Amino acid sequence: MIIAKVIGTVVSTRKNSNLIGSKFMIVEPLPVMQSDIKRLVAVDQAGAGIGDYVLVSVGSAARMLSGSEAASIDAAIVGVIDSPDEIVVKE
Amino acid sequence: MIIAKVIGTVVSTRKNSNLIGSKFMIVEPLPVMQSDIKRLVAVDQAGAGIGDYVLVSVGSAARMLSGSEAASIDAAIVGVIDSPDEIVVKE
Amino acid sequence: MIIAKVIGTVVSTRKNSNLIGSKFMIVEPLPVMQSDIKRLVAVDQAGAGIGDYVLVSVGSAARMLSGSEAASIDAAIVGVIDSPDEIVVKE
Amino acid sequence: MIIAKVIGTVVSTRKNSNLIGSKFMIVEPLPVMQSDIKRLVAVDQAGAGIGDYVLVSVGSAARMLSGSEAASIDAAIVGVIDSPDEIVVKE
Amino acid sequence: MIIAKVIGTVVSTRKNSNLIGSKFMIVEPLPVMQSDIKRLVAVDQAGAGIGDYVLVSVGSAARMLSGSEAASIDAAIVGVIDSPDEIVVKE
Repeated sequence: MIIAKVIGTVVSTRKNSNLIGSKFMIVEPLPVMQSDIKRLVAVDQAGAGIGDYVLVSVGSAARMLSGSEAASIDAAIVGVIDSPDEIVVKE
Repeated sequence: MIIAKVIGTVVSTRKNSNLIGSKFMIVEPLPVMQSDIKRLVAVDQAGAGIGDYVLVSVGSAARMLSGSEAASIDAAIVGVIDSPDEIVVKE
Repeated sequence: MIIAKVIGTVVSTRKNSNLIGSKFMIVEPLPVMQSDIKRLVAVDQAGAGIGDYVLVSVGSAARMLSGSEAASIDAAIVGVIDSPDEIVVKE
Repeated sequence: MIIAKVIGTVVSTRKNSNLIGSKFMIVEPLPVMQSDIKRLVAVDQAGAGIGDYVLVSVGSAARMLSGSEAASIDAAIVGVIDSPDEIVVKE
Repeated sequence: MIIAKVIGTVVSTRKNSNLIGSKFMIVEPLPVMQSDIKRLVAVDQAGAGIGDYVLVSVGSAARMLSGSEAASIDAAIVGVIDSPDEIVVKE
């Protein structure tokens, strides 16, 4: 997973039927998290809002939530971090 | 998913039989979306056309649409964004 | 998928038994296609030859062809483009 | 797999129910291991602690451990290396 | 797949039980093969030794070998190239 900040939303009305009801969020990984990905679109599975710091899973992991097994999604917000202070790093 | 613009098409007549009928589109991710991927070929699953801004799913997510489960595809257009104005980012 | 040019071959006699009969081709993505991958080895599933421009699928998509479901492969040539002229880009 | 050092932890209380009980560790790949990934969050499956050098598997490999098959995770610590001295490289 | 050279080994005694018996090799992709991956750890499935040039499959392809279906691995050596001379490239 990567830690990212939710910075926006995007709406698609014409989409695969298996995506109906999905909430598309634009997330931006923390700079220290991944250098090759700038921003991506993740489906919210954890009740996240703009400004939240979240855990994002990519690949088939995004379809583990009950009800999402057959959705055409490759990235999902799977957890919300209450505060960036909870990210503890001891280098 | 990433947001990309449909910029072209490509035709392959000699291909795996599980790809017959697939519409191959060349998409270019928005510059803010992913820095390491320039362009890729995605199979259209949402009725997209050249110039459209679309949601592209990669990996096994591209085979979630009914009928595409056994296709040799690793990228698909799964939704169309009506206008780039619907991409809302609050930084 | 990415569009690549077939530029070579490689032979491995000592390999997983599920790879026996596989034809290993070295492919080079078009420069506009993906910046982080230089060359890779893909199993031919479309009758490609050196110099051909081809569609390459990566990941589990490479094992969708009937008979390849249990092969240890993560990249496959799934289609041949008759001519680079068939790649239409309208920017 | 990549070899990484465990450098931190992160706590998420609001998360997918299939993640309850997961221990989220922040890991940093060895500089020689992967140049495009800086840090990522991996679920501990091997009893790792901060400062440990570990083997990290990504993708569906992270869900092979018994009990984790349905978890929304895309990275896991699957082994602990007792000491960096056990990494033998003959160039 | 990518072509890589086996340059080392690593030992992990505390690991997932599904990894017992796995031989972890450190491999380095040929410079022309992939620019974003430096080195990675791959499980040997082809009897490779240090100095060998090998085919490495990543992702779920690493678990196709009979007996490895449930192992927590995301990279495997699936073939050995007898000599770098067998890599034929016609540019």
